[in-house]
Amino acid sequence: MRKQVTITKTDHRVFIEENAPRDGLQNEAAVFSLEEKVSLVDSLTQCGFPRIQVGAFVDPRKVPQMADTEKLLERIARGGQTIYSALVLNERGMERAAASGIGHVSFFVSASDAHSRRNTNLSAEDALHQARKAVSKAVSRGISVQGGIMNAFTCPFEGVIPLERVLYLVCTLTEMGVEEINLADTAGLAHPLQVTRVVQRVLQVTEIPVSLHLHDSLGFGLVNAYAAWNEGIRRFDASCGGLGGCPFLPQSAGNIASEDMVNLFESMGVSTGISLPRLVEVARMLRTKLNRPLWSRYLTLCGSPP
Amino acid sequence: MRKQVTITKTDHRVFIEENAPRDGLQNEAAVFSLEEKVSLVDSLTQCGFPRIQVGAFVDPRKVPQMADTEKLLERIARGGQTIYSALVLNERGMERAAASGIGHVSFFVSASDAHSRRNTNLSAEDALHQARKAVSKAVSRGISVQGGIMNAFTCPFEGVIPLERVLYLVCTLTEMGVEEINLADTAGLAHPLQVTRVVQRVLQVTEIPVSLHLHDSLGFGLVNAYAAWNEGIRRFDASCGGLGGCPFLPQSAGNIASEDMVNLFESMGVSTGISLPRLVEVARMLRTKLNRPLWSRYLTLCGSPP
Repeated sequence: MRKQVTITKTDHRVFIEENAPRDGLQNEAAVFSLEEKVSLVDSLTQCGFPRIQVGAFVDPRKVPQMADTEKLLERIARGGQTIYSALVLNERGMERAAASGIGHVSFFVSASDAHSRRNTNLSAEDALHQARKAVSKAVSRGISVQGGIMNAFTCPFEGVIPLERVLYLVCTLTEMGVEEINLADTAGLAHPLQVTRVVQRVLQVTEIPVSLHLHDSLGFGLVNAYAAWNEGIRRFDASCGGLGGCPFLPQSAGNIASEDMVNLFESMGVSTGISLPRLVEVARMLRTKLNRPLWSRYLTLCGSPP
Repeated sequence: MRKQVTITKTDHRVFIEENAPRDGLQNEAAVFSLEEKVSLVDSLTQCGFPRIQVGAFVDPRKVPQMADTEKLLERIARGGQTIYSALVLNERGMERAAASGIGHVSFFVSASDAHSRRNTNLSAEDALHQARKAVSKAVSRGISVQGGIMNAFTCPFEGVIPLERVLYLVCTLTEMGVEEINLADTAGLAHPLQVTRVVQRVLQVTEIPVSLHLHDSLGFGLVNAYAAWNEGIRRFDASCGGLGGCPFLPQSAGNIASEDMVNLFESMGVSTGISLPRLVEVARMLRTKLNRPLWSRYLTLCGSPP
């Protein structure tokens, strides 16, 4: 069930994980039926994404939009090279993940104590302790784990996160046996010099691949992605139509629109393996469903009805 | 009347020229009265811009929005350090500029023959010949000239512009006596690796300051600015509210929003000398006047009515 994708610094390819079904939908007032979610994930699979985060094994009372993640995983069309993943924040979620038969999960802790308490009711250190038990459980069952760090750059409650704290979390998660580190700019407050500095140091302390999850709250998403790419980062998260945001962080307006990220890298001659025409069709469908303009430059420019 | 601003590569400052009154308004269907233009320029002066392009000495039949540039220059409030500039495309325009008493102009030629013919009815080489006469006239009258190159990266009609053509234009304009080179991504089709390559070479062939005019058609505006900044570029054009576009290039949707550019550089610890709170007020006023959402992330995030 597990698949390995290796992307090296010298590759003229990037690996883009699609986040709209999870990070995108969790913050939307509009309710997507299970049918609509299945259709969304299947459409994104058709675009050629190497990995799609389809849902989350989190408290359904807190994030009701993610309550049907098990059903969604049963219903989506599989085949091809796409890996399906889900977000997990505690041991209970990891139990659900294991029971669902999923092959890949993202386990996130926060670099900010204040955000950790709001997001999981645990101090950052207690959340890390939970992570150790949960990751161990996943690894023993053959589930591949991405170890993610929320607020790895700047937290709206705590300000700039000390680099040492990020490095400590990277080392600890690596030692737990995760197969990839994800640095998340959860509120979208990082700037490219900061991303450059953090990424340079993180790449010195871990041997496993590092991916970035960048929000576009200030419009710095693509700049930060480019700065990280310049340092050798080859894995990024993005969200079709630029949907997304953290329910606990009102500043976290939207992810980088996948179509803008694909367009940037393909323009640079860096292959993504993703079909931009298909992707803009999915973004257009999301715009119709949500009935509001989306923060996606490519959709705005190329996605108008004929 | 002439003022010199020197920004070096090692400076922790950038020089941002505001373009909304010219590049912004010229493409808008909404008509701004002379009073409204005076108010706009005065508000932008209050923001602290070191230079504002307020109008254009071009054919009033082709670009009627710019017909009152002389009157505007008479009416705006002066004082402070702001330099007021206007666009010129031929000798006739330079005559008008000189008669107006303006101290700084931008004379633009196109690197694309196809675009030059559409924009000025002249081949690129004939336009360069005109430039020589017009720049000479300006220099002899003590007017400071920025020598600009439209479509310096990719032209929607001709594709990627050969680097040799850009270098030839840079050298020729420098030799004519312009005091600054401006490289314009007129249609907003450049990507950051391309900007990096072009800027690296241009900085090798001229000693005078080089500024960039970047459109955000594909959402790559800030990425391209950051890439250029990394190569030592310290002067940029931007447009309040992200207004702008070339009437002859439908692809050229909007400049980089000044408030997003100021926010990026200030976030990076690079001083712009521009007041972001005042600037977002101007952008909000433009949004009210134009009665449509503007492509400005900072305005969208911070400029909502209380």
